[in-house]
Amino acid sequence: MNIKINDSFLKINDSYLFSTINKKVKKFISINPNADIIRLGIGDVTLPLSKVVIDALEKASAEMGVQKTFRGYPPEYGYDFLKEAIKKYYSRLNVTLDMDSIFCSDGAKSDLGNIVDIFGDNLVYIPNPVYPVYLDSNIMAGRRVRFMEGNKDNNFLILPKGDYECGIYYLCSPNNPCGTAYTYEELKKWVDFAKRTGSLIIYDSAYEAFIKGNEFVHSIYEIEGAKECAIEVCSFSKQAGFTGLRCGFTIIPLELEAMGHSINKLWSRRQATKFNGVSYPVQRAAEAALSPLGIAECMKNIDYYMENARMLSKLFDEKGIYYTGGKSSPYLWILCPKGMKSWDFFDYLLENANVVGTPGEGFGTCGEGYFRITSFNTHERTKEAIERLRKIL
Amino acid sequence: MNIKINDSFLKINDSYLFSTINKKVKKFISINPNADIIRLGIGDVTLPLSKVVIDALEKASAEMGVQKTFRGYPPEYGYDFLKEAIKKYYSRLNVTLDMDSIFCSDGAKSDLGNIVDIFGDNLVYIPNPVYPVYLDSNIMAGRRVRFMEGNKDNNFLILPKGDYECGIYYLCSPNNPCGTAYTYEELKKWVDFAKRTGSLIIYDSAYEAFIKGNEFVHSIYEIEGAKECAIEVCSFSKQAGFTGLRCGFTIIPLELEAMGHSINKLWSRRQATKFNGVSYPVQRAAEAALSPLGIAECMKNIDYYMENARMLSKLFDEKGIYYTGGKSSPYLWILCPKGMKSWDFFDYLLENANVVGTPGEGFGTCGEGYFRITSFNTHERTKEAIERLRKIL
Repeated sequence: MNIKINDSFLKINDSYLFSTINKKVKKFISINPNADIIRLGIGDVTLPLSKVVIDALEKASAEMGVQKTFRGYPPEYGYDFLKEAIKKYYSRLNVTLDMDSIFCSDGAKSDLGNIVDIFGDNLVYIPNPVYPVYLDSNIMAGRRVRFMEGNKDNNFLILPKGDYECGIYYLCSPNNPCGTAYTYEELKKWVDFAKRTGSLIIYDSAYEAFIKGNEFVHSIYEIEGAKECAIEVCSFSKQAGFTGLRCGFTIIPLELEAMGHSINKLWSRRQATKFNGVSYPVQRAAEAALSPLGIAECMKNIDYYMENARMLSKLFDEKGIYYTGGKSSPYLWILCPKGMKSWDFFDYLLENANVVGTPGEGFGTCGEGYFRITSFNTHERTKEAIERLRKIL
Repeated sequence: MNIKINDSFLKINDSYLFSTINKKVKKFISINPNADIIRLGIGDVTLPLSKVVIDALEKASAEMGVQKTFRGYPPEYGYDFLKEAIKKYYSRLNVTLDMDSIFCSDGAKSDLGNIVDIFGDNLVYIPNPVYPVYLDSNIMAGRRVRFMEGNKDNNFLILPKGDYECGIYYLCSPNNPCGTAYTYEELKKWVDFAKRTGSLIIYDSAYEAFIKGNEFVHSIYEIEGAKECAIEVCSFSKQAGFTGLRCGFTIIPLELEAMGHSINKLWSRRQATKFNGVSYPVQRAAEAALSPLGIAECMKNIDYYMENARMLSKLFDEKGIYYTGGKSSPYLWILCPKGMKSWDFFDYLLENANVVGTPGEGFGTCGEGYFRITSFNTHERTKEAIERLRKIL
């Protein structure tokens, strides 16, 4: 055909990071079919959904088979019952959300991928290393990107710098892949910076439910003034184990405006045009996940994963390996031993311990020489992996 | 904030067509709370999901609560079991699909909205009138649009014209909103045209399951050569009643290439980056909908709706009102009586018969003076609506 493609697609890696890892592991398995692979790589949950969530999912599924309770197209931005549950969830932080600021979706990845649609050609500041979707989606849109470098010196926690200009800033806290999180004071620096420079913060809080204690903030809206400068993207994937169910939401405050235009209105229009809502049974499941019993059951699962994180942390402490994360995050971000490069360490672990992790370089150039290990497997498998790692590290 | 928004958003209607209708109806209800509104407007199904579909949905939901059967992230483009079912479904047309050409999604609307991402600045030819997403998504992307005019003279069935150039062509058959469909010969004209001009056809077959008899094609791939020039977008929404469950799929043949670039590869990359797959229980439900029993049960529902279409057609035949559709489509596209304009007729129907339809003008300027009526309600409500319309038309 003689039609033009979007050239920007030629500027990104051929393959999305986790697709590449998948292929390498598949290939290894085909050569070593008896290998007992332990996956501590892709950030996927492993525990089944909690009872109150399953009950809601099953009940809503049954409703779809009965004329009286059957539902067709969902309301564009989510059923009120789910938006009310989200609003109530935020009230625990003393954050009051307008119902119209809540947009339910099939997941944070979709929202992060699609949010680029509504913005023009701005400077886009992206942490390095970080979840690859922020960068890839902006490169695909032909946007100008600047990296905010994470490293050992700043312990992979990025704060505003003097030479940062007006633009769109992606922040992720607790961070994927580094597991670091912002305190109130640190995030306030960002909000103040954004307000001072007229910038927008896109705040990814997918892992906020893993935060222990009161040291770190859960939502950027805990900071005064954030409603005028920040979008918050959230997910049920890690909090409630919904990676296979698909549900998330994005908060776009009504107060958020750029050069006279309401960002909320733009996203409303974008979603009304290109999205048809979240599956009804899934919305009921999400509502249940935010009920008091649902939250308690989700927290039990999170505590389970964090016990893995504790055991993994202990291993790296023992070995004197530098790492961040593992305390308020399911991710541990380790410095590869012996100055090994990320992908070399990936191969080393896969071949010598049959353990899969994620090479830090896949998250950005500043991730080179680092490696992400996840806490999402079972206790048994994590212990087994720890034993294997103990021998070869 | 001082950041730039996507200016193209300022070039489209403030509100998506069906959002606008929703608001008008809500307002009418608030003023006339006792009005018995019959909705023949938004193309939403009303019959509950069939038993085999519900069984699959419930079984998969239960699996998500048990460690042994719990599933996390779905494979990027859909589980093999669903892709196999789709491949088998197409084989009934003697069309053989490569597994890698099948991309499952949460619905045709998402795919149609997002497919613009992978293309560059081409001439985009869009029927007028047609489903608003094609136009809105391209305007949002700043694309140059030309309209292919449907009217009484061509009976709202658009064929290639001499002055049409190389570009991206959207076709919808059976058509939304006009209900017209292409025969083999007519669609072959399009495929030949596309091959001759190096154009791409984006073929929306969301309503193919409504086709009666052998006169019209179900898939563009029934035409030889279509794999080199066409993408096909499909949906479980209307066929299987999945408007509330959310599932669709897009076929991008491996043969499809533009100036040396594989379109399949581009969409693979786009989806791997910005989408996280379809909900597992919903995929099992879709698989069930494509089983022999599932198809039989879906066809029963479709026959039910088409009985409504038959009754509505009879009314308009009786009144001598020009219309298209209603035979292989759940939509009837009528000429507004007395030369009334679309939105005036919308108000007239709402106020005098408490019936909601969709103003043709909402689908494009060539829809002015026309009106879309849907067959998706119950027999009882459709009969009631017909009686009311009979009095006022």
